[in-house]
Amino acid sequence: MQQEPPTDRSGFRFTPLVVVELASNIKEETIAWLLSRIRDQQQNGGAELFAEQLGPSVEAQEKENPNVFLVWASWQRLLSGAEDVGLFKEYNDGSMRGFTRANKHNFKDFKGKVRHDLSDANLRTAPQHFMPLSYFQQEKYSERAVLLRRLLSKGLLVQIFPLHEKEELKRLSFSWYKKVKLSLQPLDDIRHYYGEGQALYFGFLEYFTFALVPMALIGVPYYLFDWEDYDKYVVFAVFNLIWCTVILELWKRFSASLAYRWGTLSRKKAFEEPRPGFHGVLGFNPVTGREEPVYPTAKRHLRIYLVSLPFVLLCLYLSLYVMMIYFQMEGWALSVHDEDPTFWTGILLFIPSIIYAVVIEIMNLIYRYAAEFLTEWENHRLESSYQNHLVLKVLVFNFFNCFASLFYIAFVMQDMVLLRQSLATLLITSQILNQFMEAFLPYWLQRRRNKKMIRKVQKKRTLEDKELPLVEQVRLEADMSTYLGTFDDYLELFLLFGYVSLFSCVYPLAAVLVVLNNITEVYSDAFKMCQVFKRPFSDPAANIGVWQLAFEAMSVIAVVTNCALIGMSPQVKAYFPESETQLILWTVAIEHGLLAFKFILTFLIPDIPKHIQIKLSRLEFESLEALKKKPKKKPQTLKREPSDGYCPV
Amino acid sequence: MQQEPPTDRSGFRFTPLVVVELASNIKEETIAWLLSRIRDQQQNGGAELFAEQLGPSVEAQEKENPNVFLVWASWQRLLSGAEDVGLFKEYNDGSMRGFTRANKHNFKDFKGKVRHDLSDANLRTAPQHFMPLSYFQQEKYSERAVLLRRLLSKGLLVQIFPLHEKEELKRLSFSWYKKVKLSLQPLDDIRHYYGEGQALYFGFLEYFTFALVPMALIGVPYYLFDWEDYDKYVVFAVFNLIWCTVILELWKRFSASLAYRWGTLSRKKAFEEPRPGFHGVLGFNPVTGREEPVYPTAKRHLRIYLVSLPFVLLCLYLSLYVMMIYFQMEGWALSVHDEDPTFWTGILLFIPSIIYAVVIEIMNLIYRYAAEFLTEWENHRLESSYQNHLVLKVLVFNFFNCFASLFYIAFVMQDMVLLRQSLATLLITSQILNQFMEAFLPYWLQRRRNKKMIRKVQKKRTLEDKELPLVEQVRLEADMSTYLGTFDDYLELFLLFGYVSLFSCVYPLAAVLVVLNNITEVYSDAFKMCQVFKRPFSDPAANIGVWQLAFEAMSVIAVVTNCALIGMSPQVKAYFPESETQLILWTVAIEHGLLAFKFILTFLIPDIPKHIQIKLSRLEFESLEALKKKPKKKPQTLKREPSDGYCPV
Repeated sequence: MQQEPPTDRSGFRFTPLVVVELASNIKEETIAWLLSRIRDQQQNGGAELFAEQLGPSVEAQEKENPNVFLVWASWQRLLSGAEDVGLFKEYNDGSMRGFTRANKHNFKDFKGKVRHDLSDANLRTAPQHFMPLSYFQQEKYSERAVLLRRLLSKGLLVQIFPLHEKEELKRLSFSWYKKVKLSLQPLDDIRHYYGEGQALYFGFLEYFTFALVPMALIGVPYYLFDWEDYDKYVVFAVFNLIWCTVILELWKRFSASLAYRWGTLSRKKAFEEPRPGFHGVLGFNPVTGREEPVYPTAKRHLRIYLVSLPFVLLCLYLSLYVMMIYFQMEGWALSVHDEDPTFWTGILLFIPSIIYAVVIEIMNLIYRYAAEFLTEWENHRLESSYQNHLVLKVLVFNFFNCFASLFYIAFVMQDMVLLRQSLATLLITSQILNQFMEAFLPYWLQRRRNKKMIRKVQKKRTLEDKELPLVEQVRLEADMSTYLGTFDDYLELFLLFGYVSLFSCVYPLAAVLVVLNNITEVYSDAFKMCQVFKRPFSDPAANIGVWQLAFEAMSVIAVVTNCALIGMSPQVKAYFPESETQLILWTVAIEHGLLAFKFILTFLIPDIPKHIQIKLSRLEFESLEALKKKPKKKPQTLKREPSDGYCPV
Repeated sequence: MQQEPPTDRSGFRFTPLVVVELASNIKEETIAWLLSRIRDQQQNGGAELFAEQLGPSVEAQEKENPNVFLVWASWQRLLSGAEDVGLFKEYNDGSMRGFTRANKHNFKDFKGKVRHDLSDANLRTAPQHFMPLSYFQQEKYSERAVLLRRLLSKGLLVQIFPLHEKEELKRLSFSWYKKVKLSLQPLDDIRHYYGEGQALYFGFLEYFTFALVPMALIGVPYYLFDWEDYDKYVVFAVFNLIWCTVILELWKRFSASLAYRWGTLSRKKAFEEPRPGFHGVLGFNPVTGREEPVYPTAKRHLRIYLVSLPFVLLCLYLSLYVMMIYFQMEGWALSVHDEDPTFWTGILLFIPSIIYAVVIEIMNLIYRYAAEFLTEWENHRLESSYQNHLVLKVLVFNFFNCFASLFYIAFVMQDMVLLRQSLATLLITSQILNQFMEAFLPYWLQRRRNKKMIRKVQKKRTLEDKELPLVEQVRLEADMSTYLGTFDDYLELFLLFGYVSLFSCVYPLAAVLVVLNNITEVYSDAFKMCQVFKRPFSDPAANIGVWQLAFEAMSVIAVVTNCALIGMSPQVKAYFPESETQLILWTVAIEHGLLAFKFILTFLIPDIPKHIQIKLSRLEFESLEALKKKPKKKPQTLKREPSDGYCPV
């Protein structure tokens, strides 16, 4: 079967928006219903898109799934979609405005760049935008709920994904990671190809790396010239304190600049549809008045506070318990080694650390599944709220798992040498693991896959020259791994930030290691995004969301730990030779002062740079003025005689 | 000269909007220019209002100022003004919407209540709305700047004020404070007559009083049954801690409900014009593009950080210095008394406290002037920013002045008996002073004024029956005191909140005293608002603004002091008999935990109650939907053949 790609009157050429893969054993009627929903006009409750079945590949195998569909949109549909999504674009006067079809020609470079954008990243924001529930309004909710939910959650809908654009991808990957250079990442191109959420992650990664450079520069001489006699670290701790407050504040401003340039800063959030997994008694949404499942908030709160919260606390307790066992094992191994040191007891010394590291990894893994299950079970209506609760759960546990032993060593055992050792071990092993999991493994997998592809295509070489045919591309990309979002990437950065900000004053080389790690991270992440994963749906983020909060919480904790480390340093202790109480009281007083100063600083530094603030106010002012002028008829000024005898004097 | 009050075609009867009093020695041309500005149509740059000179009063005296003008507006002008101001009113469907003339009849009870509202409190929001700079656009800025600034700041414009409405005021004052009752204040009526800012203050006062009742109820048995042996206060301190966090969070929700009901919650702020005192080089406002004075932010920052900040710090140091002198004096008096106790030395014991109290009052007074001068000199463009900086300066100093001695007694001298004494003395004296200044003095002044008025009117009794003629009313109200805003009222509440939350665990009767004080405060404030002051311009506030922040900062400090007091209690000290260090570390750890819990609580409790949140989202959703539908033409679905040979397979 040969497909004809729709082209518009304006001669605009379309690449398919997305590929939809249904389960191979799905019923014919279901397919027919779904296709009619996709193809029907909007007034009939359809999505008004084109959908065609993908033909068999060159050497069709038995097991190949026939239910793969390509979905296109007409030019008009793209424009209306851009309006629906609330797309912001650069206007003729240089400001960013919400796109409307009515004044589309007033947008800068509408003929060229904007047209391309519309068909590109911006309509592929999320599967919900491509096939939102609201397009199926005419159907009774009960019917389509059954069908759509079976499609989405029971595995009948295998996947929906946008296709890579080979040419653009080649250009992007060249400027991003293939050439050896000392320039910045092409954030605008990344944003253009992958969307704002991705680009903000890479922007943050880059920013974080640069922010670490001063720390690293101070850390190197500390290490080289043997300044690390554990009591010179007061200077470093103070620097740490100021550093982590300031960089987070500045990031907010930088992020606001990026988001403004990309048009997501002042974008109005469209009404959020419920997430696919959300279920409940059929009722009416109080906001939209539409039929949809309703689940009482009180019930969700009960689940959160009576089940999830105790579970998390239990896990934290377990994690602490495991940590205590580790310290006991280490103590035991040490005593065995001290009693009768042989080669085997020497090896025994390493056993507890290795076991602990493995157990931590296993616990993290199990906990992650449990957290996902629990958050799913809490039955959040919005994807964003689901994500926030999941991030919070995973974050707290990972923080505990990774840092509890360091806290114990630092503040209970007060053993700075051991702290330094543990920090270095943890940092280096986690980096090696990461590099292996994130760079070498994907690279190896990709090479294997490439070989398979080359073998396949070689048989067809004679038919076409160079260009991989669409069918092959679709089949190939359907097999690629699915990108699971920036969650794990941010989590890794969060933990690295923790190592640097909490304890790096006792191990100044940490910043250097993290900088090196981040540089390879940029390249390996870029490689994965371009070569290993299916193209993800882009998400129009205006900031890094809940992660900003997480990093700020970490920086508050860093103030506390750094103050405590300063108070525990021999240097400072020397000032209070007679009274430990005085020392502690002073430390606490200074810590409170610093915390207060930090909060004042957060207030004083505006989150949005002034020039952007002015542009935003101008937009708002203009829209207010426009609103005023619209219905204003010339007011009548009457000079009539008073109609009643009211006399003011 | 007899004025004819303008009435509208619709037979709507007007009371004058405002009274404008110009200096008696102002030039005729200036008056003529100003009147033409007020009377001209808007397209000519005028304000399109009616203005008439007030005639002489019954027994015109030599010194009576002839330059008093009454200003009216036509019905159409009121409607357009309501739009300009961004008035929110209840719509037919029960939601609150921005008023527009186009759909005025869709507002609930438009014929009755809304019509009245429009002419009433809502247009009298501020002098800027009545005579905004933007109405004088046609004039060159330089010209009108000179004229208006001379008018406003050089004292040529004596005052602008709205008139009281006798009938309504009588009704309001009766339901507010004249009848002895146990019901709540008529907040809606207060808001209707005085505006949202006033009503929120009285709402907060009432809320704060009720919130204190549990504290007072616990405090009374403490006092009666002699529980106050200074080490039972742990329970009270813990209760204090939770109490002050929770009530502030709940107030936010309550205040949001009030603001929603009054239509200020989702109201869009109109563009703020520069405040009258603002000066600078003539330039263009980057937001509006209009000509106006421009003053570089960097320069203002320099003034704030290099002059104002050091000045404030210096004052704080001075305040501390005075406090230390006071303690020295007290020590000296005590030693003199102890050496040779006579009647005179007994009196001498009181001298330091009295001197200190007087000096504090004087310092507060001088500082207040200095703060106003400095904030004026910082040259803020916006009235709101001026207010915030002034509040911050005065707040910090007052906090220091009032609480520094208590902090010193509690944490340096660690003398709980003295702390209790000082707290009681401070609280009781400040309340007696307040009651005198706020209730008896105004009452006495008012009685004197009433007598004068009665004498005046009696001579005219024969002419009219009962109703005071407008001319007399205007002359009378022009002589009334000007209400200076809620600043001092909030400041008083803030200090009372401080006494209760910071230290009341050592003097549990504090809450009882504050409750009693607040009850009389309601009555005396209500009396002042209705009888003593000119009717103030209403300000459409959505919350208590910077004061919310101030109270929250106080509640954070309260956590710290209460934890410290708990840690210092003999009860707790008994748990750590061997090590003071352990005690302090535990106290600090618990304090950090409580602070963290407090911040988490702030996040967990939503600032806006759910049912209002739903209404707001529905409004937003509807406006988004409306935006979508407006320009949507039926998308063309083309079934053309592809125009070029692009083939997807």
